Amino acid sequence: MFADAPARPLAVSLGDPAGIGPELIAEAWVRRNQERLPPFFAVGGAELLAAAAKARGLELTTRRIAEPAEAAGIFATALPVFGFLDGDYRPGMADEAGARLALASLETATALAVQGEAAGLVTGPIAKAELAKIGFAHPGQTEFVAAASGVAAQDAVMMLAGPSLRTVPMTVHCALSEVPQRLTFELIFRRSMVVARALQTDFGIAHPRLAICGLNPHAGEAGRMGREEIEIIAPAIAALRADGIDATGPHPADSLFSPRARETYDVAIAMYHDQALVPLKALDFDAGVNVTLGLPIIRTSPDHGTAFAIAGKGVADAGATIAALRMAGEMASRRAAR
Amino acid sequence: MFADAPARPLAVSLGDPAGIGPELIAEAWVRRNQERLPPFFAVGGAELLAAAAKARGLELTTRRIAEPAEAAGIFATALPVFGFLDGDYRPGMADEAGARLALASLETATALAVQGEAAGLVTGPIAKAELAKIGFAHPGQTEFVAAASGVAAQDAVMMLAGPSLRTVPMTVHCALSEVPQRLTFELIFRRSMVVARALQTDFGIAHPRLAICGLNPHAGEAGRMGREEIEIIAPAIAALRADGIDATGPHPADSLFSPRARETYDVAIAMYHDQALVPLKALDFDAGVNVTLGLPIIRTSPDHGTAFAIAGKGVADAGATIAALRMAGEMASRRAAR
Repeated sequence: MFADAPARPLAVSLGDPAGIGPELIAEAWVRRNQERLPPFFAVGGAELLAAAAKARGLELTTRRIAEPAEAAGIFATALPVFGFLDGDYRPGMADEAGARLALASLETATALAVQGEAAGLVTGPIAKAELAKIGFAHPGQTEFVAAASGVAAQDAVMMLAGPSLRTVPMTVHCALSEVPQRLTFELIFRRSMVVARALQTDFGIAHPRLAICGLNPHAGEAGRMGREEIEIIAPAIAALRADGIDATGPHPADSLFSPRARETYDVAIAMYHDQALVPLKALDFDAGVNVTLGLPIIRTSPDHGTAFAIAGKGVADAGATIAALRMAGEMASRRAAR
Repeated sequence: MFADAPARPLAVSLGDPAGIGPELIAEAWVRRNQERLPPFFAVGGAELLAAAAKARGLELTTRRIAEPAEAAGIFATALPVFGFLDGDYRPGMADEAGARLALASLETATALAVQGEAAGLVTGPIAKAELAKIGFAHPGQTEFVAAASGVAAQDAVMMLAGPSLRTVPMTVHCALSEVPQRLTFELIFRRSMVVARALQTDFGIAHPRLAICGLNPHAGEAGRMGREEIEIIAPAIAALRADGIDATGPHPADSLFSPRARETYDVAIAMYHDQALVPLKALDFDAGVNVTLGLPIIRTSPDHGTAFAIAGKGVADAGATIAALRMAGEMASRRAAR
């Protein structure tokens, strides 16, 4: 496939219908020309999206499609909606029917990406607690998508990317007190390798520069404040370098996110959740994209939650959804051009 | 003393003479009018400052003074230098003579502030490892200044302040694995009280709003990822509120530093070093000020180190030194006006 051939469209899952997902999909379609977005289609929700658009004061036209291949021709004049999944629009009112719709939309959108009918998958925000009630056993959408595309959970790596910064946390949803014992040479080496390869294939960076954070203040100051840098992180960096990866560190995290430091790397590898998420959200709050690296398919997501409290009120910012769509489109073009 | 009476000057310690401290003092004096800086004097270093200014291409005039009270009248035409302490200017070449000069300058500047002859103290960056070699037993300047002004180390609280953010870490220089056990109700309550009072007396905020971070990702998600929020942090917040302090939280740290969230508080109370320092340096790298709260004297410092590698090369940014001088002057005016 050539980069300038008619692109396959992106599949977009609705997220929880009571959250801000539907209204942001509608807004992204309305702004498709000014934002130069690649063609995409929603998986289900034709009525729901129309209602969400109306509540937000948007002029949205939807058109149902039976095949993803129909989307590109329709996209200029209507938001294509795949299939007949749908539900009522009750913003802020999460319930079981909404959770079932969110899950069905996610399952179908993922399947279309895995089958190659969609160029990639952009997932709307779900409510994990609501999905758990109906038996969804994965910690989050990332793990679901990894399983659906045949990748072990530990090889699917979450990257957060905004206009100012790309960052990857090595550990995510665990107590801070558990972080030191979860960090291993193997974890850092293997995940950093996934990151380096994905930056080459999907982000067009021939020689990606990985800046790897220390765990402790000032990266431990040569062992005076913690030994994880010496015993775990530095050996992993040495092994990455031996394999030809441009990895540096362990860097003191507090200065690694300054404007000048950010010019010296393509991705910051953080040791724990807040070490990655604090700078990303401080710098790029309404434009952060959550990308899953290491998958055979492309998957991005806006880096925010359902925001039930503001759903339907017209104030949710579409920046991250637009950025997630644009990034997925760019990643798909790069893979197609290889 | 009235706020518009002739101000007592600020005392400025040189920091390590091989670091970027001297050239930044010189630059701050050169920019005194455009930056509207309060009168200040350096403690020692008349020859050294002249050499540092020359290397940086600055036109600096110095004049020795024997009493701080002489500084205000001289400041418009020359940088006042108190006393005869001095040394050779060898940027990047830290040595014992330099450490002794840095310590003597710090001791004298602190004494002048404690005696009330200076309106406040602004400290240049020191090299802790060099000072330790000559017997300096304090972990840093903050603890030295606390001891010299008769305050217990645990009641001298470091705040980092920039144009975008004020933040106070509850624990500082310890391994990340030690943070959970160091956090106590008493620590958070007592230090937050110091912060609240100092924002009232020194920063002119009648009802300071304290946003208190959780320790764990998403502030622990109701105990699913760590229990420190439930067992330690929330009770401390409740006690602060019972004492009339506008304290909120525990907040998930990752969203607390976004632009919108930052408008909702006057200071973010962080649980550990990088939780405070990462957002501060990401947002305000060349303008961060380190302020010691809870002291009878005023003490600020630029929030950067000696930067030996770039000393004498004319590239170090004077923004943080200028901000530290301006903040100390403003704090002194507020105390004087009470």
